[in-house]
Amino acid sequence: MKFGGTSLGDVERLRWAARHVKRECDAGHEVAVVVSAAGGETDRLAELARTAAPLHDAREYDAIVASGEQVNAAMMAIVLQSIGIQARSWQGWQIPITTSDAHGAARIMDIDTATLEERLAQGQVAVICGFQGIGPDRRVTTLGRGGSDTSAVAVAAALGAACCDIYTDVDGVYTTDPRIVPAARRLERISYEEMLEMASLGARVLQTRSVELAMTHGVRLRVRSTFDEPEARPSDIPATDSGIGTLVCDEEEIVEQEIVSGIAYARDEAKVTLLRVADKPGVAAGVFGPLAASGINVDMIVQNVSDDGQHTDLTFTVPKSDLERALATIEAARDRIGYERLTGQADIVKVSIIGIGMRSHAGVAAQMFQTLADRGINIQAITTSEIKVSVLIDAAYAELAVRALHAAYGLDAE
Amino acid sequence: MKFGGTSLGDVERLRWAARHVKRECDAGHEVAVVVSAAGGETDRLAELARTAAPLHDAREYDAIVASGEQVNAAMMAIVLQSIGIQARSWQGWQIPITTSDAHGAARIMDIDTATLEERLAQGQVAVICGFQGIGPDRRVTTLGRGGSDTSAVAVAAALGAACCDIYTDVDGVYTTDPRIVPAARRLERISYEEMLEMASLGARVLQTRSVELAMTHGVRLRVRSTFDEPEARPSDIPATDSGIGTLVCDEEEIVEQEIVSGIAYARDEAKVTLLRVADKPGVAAGVFGPLAASGINVDMIVQNVSDDGQHTDLTFTVPKSDLERALATIEAARDRIGYERLTGQADIVKVSIIGIGMRSHAGVAAQMFQTLADRGINIQAITTSEIKVSVLIDAAYAELAVRALHAAYGLDAE
Repeated sequence: MKFGGTSLGDVERLRWAARHVKRECDAGHEVAVVVSAAGGETDRLAELARTAAPLHDAREYDAIVASGEQVNAAMMAIVLQSIGIQARSWQGWQIPITTSDAHGAARIMDIDTATLEERLAQGQVAVICGFQGIGPDRRVTTLGRGGSDTSAVAVAAALGAACCDIYTDVDGVYTTDPRIVPAARRLERISYEEMLEMASLGARVLQTRSVELAMTHGVRLRVRSTFDEPEARPSDIPATDSGIGTLVCDEEEIVEQEIVSGIAYARDEAKVTLLRVADKPGVAAGVFGPLAASGINVDMIVQNVSDDGQHTDLTFTVPKSDLERALATIEAARDRIGYERLTGQADIVKVSIIGIGMRSHAGVAAQMFQTLADRGINIQAITTSEIKVSVLIDAAYAELAVRALHAAYGLDAE
Repeated sequence: MKFGGTSLGDVERLRWAARHVKRECDAGHEVAVVVSAAGGETDRLAELARTAAPLHDAREYDAIVASGEQVNAAMMAIVLQSIGIQARSWQGWQIPITTSDAHGAARIMDIDTATLEERLAQGQVAVICGFQGIGPDRRVTTLGRGGSDTSAVAVAAALGAACCDIYTDVDGVYTTDPRIVPAARRLERISYEEMLEMASLGARVLQTRSVELAMTHGVRLRVRSTFDEPEARPSDIPATDSGIGTLVCDEEEIVEQEIVSGIAYARDEAKVTLLRVADKPGVAAGVFGPLAASGINVDMIVQNVSDDGQHTDLTFTVPKSDLERALATIEAARDRIGYERLTGQADIVKVSIIGIGMRSHAGVAAQMFQTLADRGINIQAITTSEIKVSVLIDAAYAELAVRALHAAYGLDAE
């Protein structure tokens, strides 16, 4: 059971979360709880470190911010004890959860479960600090923001848990953003692959790395709401389609596969176009080499041959926050690349349809293009993967496109 | 170098303290710094634990409150690095500082200095969390409030440090409380024994346990002010009579021993008197046995034989906060003890003269009694030790008595 910062913001919320834990204990399950720092606490501690020095040692930063989870794990243990549950808090170094030495963005290498398993078998709930571990230098490490989801999946994998329930402030993963499409439906199940592709939606629910880790280790993840009345719904492990949250699992566990499971959108990309680039070997390297050297990630890339057959137009997307830097980088390499005109556009949106059913169905992409064309929406670029089709469109059409696609693929709730 | 909470309340104060550290580094010394939590932080964390449950597990309490030192040690390391000093923070478990398993009031058992010494030799300042260690159960322990002084002395002893400087908000130990006697003088040196006897004054400056530990291990302690201009006075190790602070050391290091070094007073005791107790064997046990069983500490005890030779009056003191409980305890045992009347008095004060010179000088106590008699102050009880004479007087005369004695023993500044 993993509880995030918004679920543990104060003692009242800790008490509420503890009732979820109690329900599982009462049902006879062995329970490990992974906790985040209280909401806002990590930001406060990071700011404190920044006031000490804007550029600071990552080891000392880790020692400071890791205290947030340390306090909250001990608080949770006390609250659990106060309602009659045996509980003990565990910091990363105590278990230990060993990580790489990349302070501030460490990766979990190993979790020694011997002591934990012994305590769990004795009926003691283990309250584990998320987000932290211990590096090869015997120093406290942190996993990077949002790392508590990853901690939870890694602990679940190491313990061979039947389920890893992520308690958060939404009650599951939806077919699309309900703020845009009121008819969006909560998915009972979604495959790991789809969840990863829906990162632009899912990032608000689950950290991408945690989904990758769950997929690698076959951990059944469930996203559910902390704010459900804890005793209202019975314990349900292993999770079945019980109306609680969304189960993120292997696609083989999903019997009725939809062709399209969800519609995602991302507003955080910007488009760069180079017009009339000489169409010769080495041009792509000339453009993307300098961008890579500047640390700018390129997402979609589209290359069209122009009329004369000797020039090409090159379009790609970069994170919106990197647009100015990307344009400057290309501009600086203009002589080497050779192009006629360079343009940047920030008011675009990437809309994607995602579904493992696409693999076995033809015409899914064509239906997407037709649906958008029917609404008069111009597609500026297209990329596809095995289970996703993404298009770049004018930002003004974002909501219209998402609603139209949601209806076209039969995702609207009845 | 040990810095307390008032010396490290915010980043500005951390920067100021860091300049003291830099001065010592620049002088070529190897430096270990022991830090407290930021002023008020331990109280905040203790209160947080209390909100989780009024009666809470001491192990979890320790995990919560130890975070205050953890954050401040890392903050200090960052601040030191920002002014060009190599520094690294150390939590209790990282060194390790092993302690007993008395969570919340643990005693330091051992400090493994191997890693610290290696780092110090490389020119790295070790910033060590005060107040904490690791118990035999591999859990974080804390030493009890004010424990950072003890941590500092223990670290100094383990490292064989030339000096242990306690930076605080006063500039040394005074002959008496300067708020009562403006002519009070800062002592250049004071022996461990005297410092312990002056606990009622010294407790505001040094934790008693830290002085005991310093005496046992021969650690030369210096009490000095954080708020001195850091670069105004040169480094001075080993500490000599340089006008900086007060050196607490072995009496053999004190060449010119005063007969009386200081005047202490304590307002936190109350007096209990049993009138006309039967003067027979077992009476003392009958009185003090029940008090001990109730966990009430008795300090001064005076017994006078009454006129008829068959009864006695018994007077003793207890902590003021325990007075009501002490009276009730005696009352409950009235039949067994057998006494005529029981009285309690809270408005009393204990005034003491302290000095290792007393051992070799007669008439010191007599001078005290005469001085008080000259002011018309009635002595209600007397106790003496080798280097201390204490009297119990009416609280209204406290300031008068302290001033008179301060003058009588030639302690007033010229």
